[in-house]
Amino acid sequence: MHEAGDVRIENVDDAAIVEPTDALVRITRACICGSDLWPYKSLVQADGPRYMGHEAVGVVDAVGREVRTLHAGDVVVMPFAFSDGTCAFCHEGLHTACVHGGFFGNQVRGAQAEAVRVPFADGTLFALPVSEDDALMPSLLTLSDVMGTGHHAAVVARVAPGKSAAVVGDGAVGLCGVIAAKRLGAEQIVLLGRHPDRIALAREFGATDVVSERGDEAVERVRELTGGVGVHSVLECVGLDESTATAIGIARPGGAVGRVGVPQDASMPGSLPAFFGNVTVGGGPAPVRAYIDELLPDVLEGRIEPGRVFDRVAALDEVPDGYRAMNDRESIKVMVTL
Amino acid sequence: MHEAGDVRIENVDDAAIVEPTDALVRITRACICGSDLWPYKSLVQADGPRYMGHEAVGVVDAVGREVRTLHAGDVVVMPFAFSDGTCAFCHEGLHTACVHGGFFGNQVRGAQAEAVRVPFADGTLFALPVSEDDALMPSLLTLSDVMGTGHHAAVVARVAPGKSAAVVGDGAVGLCGVIAAKRLGAEQIVLLGRHPDRIALAREFGATDVVSERGDEAVERVRELTGGVGVHSVLECVGLDESTATAIGIARPGGAVGRVGVPQDASMPGSLPAFFGNVTVGGGPAPVRAYIDELLPDVLEGRIEPGRVFDRVAALDEVPDGYRAMNDRESIKVMVTL
Repeated sequence: MHEAGDVRIENVDDAAIVEPTDALVRITRACICGSDLWPYKSLVQADGPRYMGHEAVGVVDAVGREVRTLHAGDVVVMPFAFSDGTCAFCHEGLHTACVHGGFFGNQVRGAQAEAVRVPFADGTLFALPVSEDDALMPSLLTLSDVMGTGHHAAVVARVAPGKSAAVVGDGAVGLCGVIAAKRLGAEQIVLLGRHPDRIALAREFGATDVVSERGDEAVERVRELTGGVGVHSVLECVGLDESTATAIGIARPGGAVGRVGVPQDASMPGSLPAFFGNVTVGGGPAPVRAYIDELLPDVLEGRIEPGRVFDRVAALDEVPDGYRAMNDRESIKVMVTL
Repeated sequence: MHEAGDVRIENVDDAAIVEPTDALVRITRACICGSDLWPYKSLVQADGPRYMGHEAVGVVDAVGREVRTLHAGDVVVMPFAFSDGTCAFCHEGLHTACVHGGFFGNQVRGAQAEAVRVPFADGTLFALPVSEDDALMPSLLTLSDVMGTGHHAAVVARVAPGKSAAVVGDGAVGLCGVIAAKRLGAEQIVLLGRHPDRIALAREFGATDVVSERGDEAVERVRELTGGVGVHSVLECVGLDESTATAIGIARPGGAVGRVGVPQDASMPGSLPAFFGNVTVGGGPAPVRAYIDELLPDVLEGRIEPGRVFDRVAALDEVPDGYRAMNDRESIKVMVTL
């Protein structure tokens, strides 16, 4: 991505092993992420070009001499963040705070590419017990980001059996948030969204109610749906001021908001209602690497189908049009196949 | 309080039972609260006069005909909020979200007075197993607010055995926060404060480190004290933008901030560092009624001595000067005796 709106597929020098803890991964499937649309709208040339893409599955092509657990030929999920797997934060399951960590497409080159260098392969990659063309691959691919991210929002929002939840945002993360809320036992799941195709999918994923109003009207509607008090758990999957204020506004006193939409402003609205309602606001970059253990069995056994968020497939040279399609809301999420 | 800086002791109509669930309580001890200093600085005449005071112990003088658990002569703690004790939020232990609740000195008259009408006496008051002149009375009095509030900050900040904690603010609530953090097992307790007398008391309460810098320098100092990463738990006991930004800045990735200082601004600073560090921010008006059960044995058996935060005693007619003394930082906290 050279600057806002300018995405090109170009020949660059080949990805290669640099550090002895690296793996070289041949990408078989990647994604365009909702968060890629922020630079797609705003990247200035001086900050470019960026090698985009932070969600992928692929096949290990080679490993550095210190890599212990992975081998050439392994089919792997590549979480959006790399992590050494050995620091205190990795041990706590917060791989996105790894002291040696970083993000694909940022500190290292991204995965909208034929191959990618993966730092700290042992701590970053997760080997899958399937072949590279397994029919479940779209759902497995979501474990690299959106399904783990939706799950993170639900965990931070303290979704639990019998509780009520709301998901703010009907993008791929919001839809995965619905899956996560349902999976963790939420009894009522309110989706706040406006796109008919996404709403339909959310209902299939377990949303029990849909609110398409915005702002104060949305808050009012959610309160009506919840006996006047709001929901126990709110999954904020957008990141704008308005959506964050709405998320706090629809939380029940004592409830929790899990933010996974990247905040677009330095201050957070709703400080006073959050305080006076004893509403907890948490979340951030999801430690998806930590969540694969828990989510993988449900994907492999078909209990959850997050791969259904992909409604468009693009070859590598179709990626620029994929950005356009997602930005124009023609597509929920684009899967890139190689 | 007629307006900022203008506190008067005046004769008003006597407190009396109005609803059958009320109790009439003769106040034996009350307090001036750090939060009373906000209106003391800013109250405009059009919003006054206010009948101040929300922390008290006293003796039940009479009860309404529907009061079941309290009787004339009972020595009681009066939490700063009244609560029906029967709604869903009271059952969940969040009495400050009671659907029929409110605050003394706000929805009903306050306790810097000879007597007070207490709504929902059964749900609000807590009967003490001591006489009205018990030597522990100052510490028991703190269960009406500051000790329960410090405890709330610690609970929301997830203080736990072996973890590190920081307390932002050396007022009475911050000092009680130190007690609470110690009581819940924090191994390292960093106090952020600047007043020598308060710092000395904090050290006696269990603070292991003191940071008197502010802003970025404070953040830097706390990081130095914590291996570069910050503390697991932060108790925000001030409520200003700067203190809140500091609280977030000194939290370890994955850590938690418990806010109990009443926020003075509609938006919260530090949204981005909180997000990228997966720092959870929670808290609000403490459900002190719910915490008395847990804290009372430690007060009665002398394991905690929160009453030491009182460094000045005032008779009722000395209350105006007590406000001045607290506002001038001559006094940490004033106990009003009747």
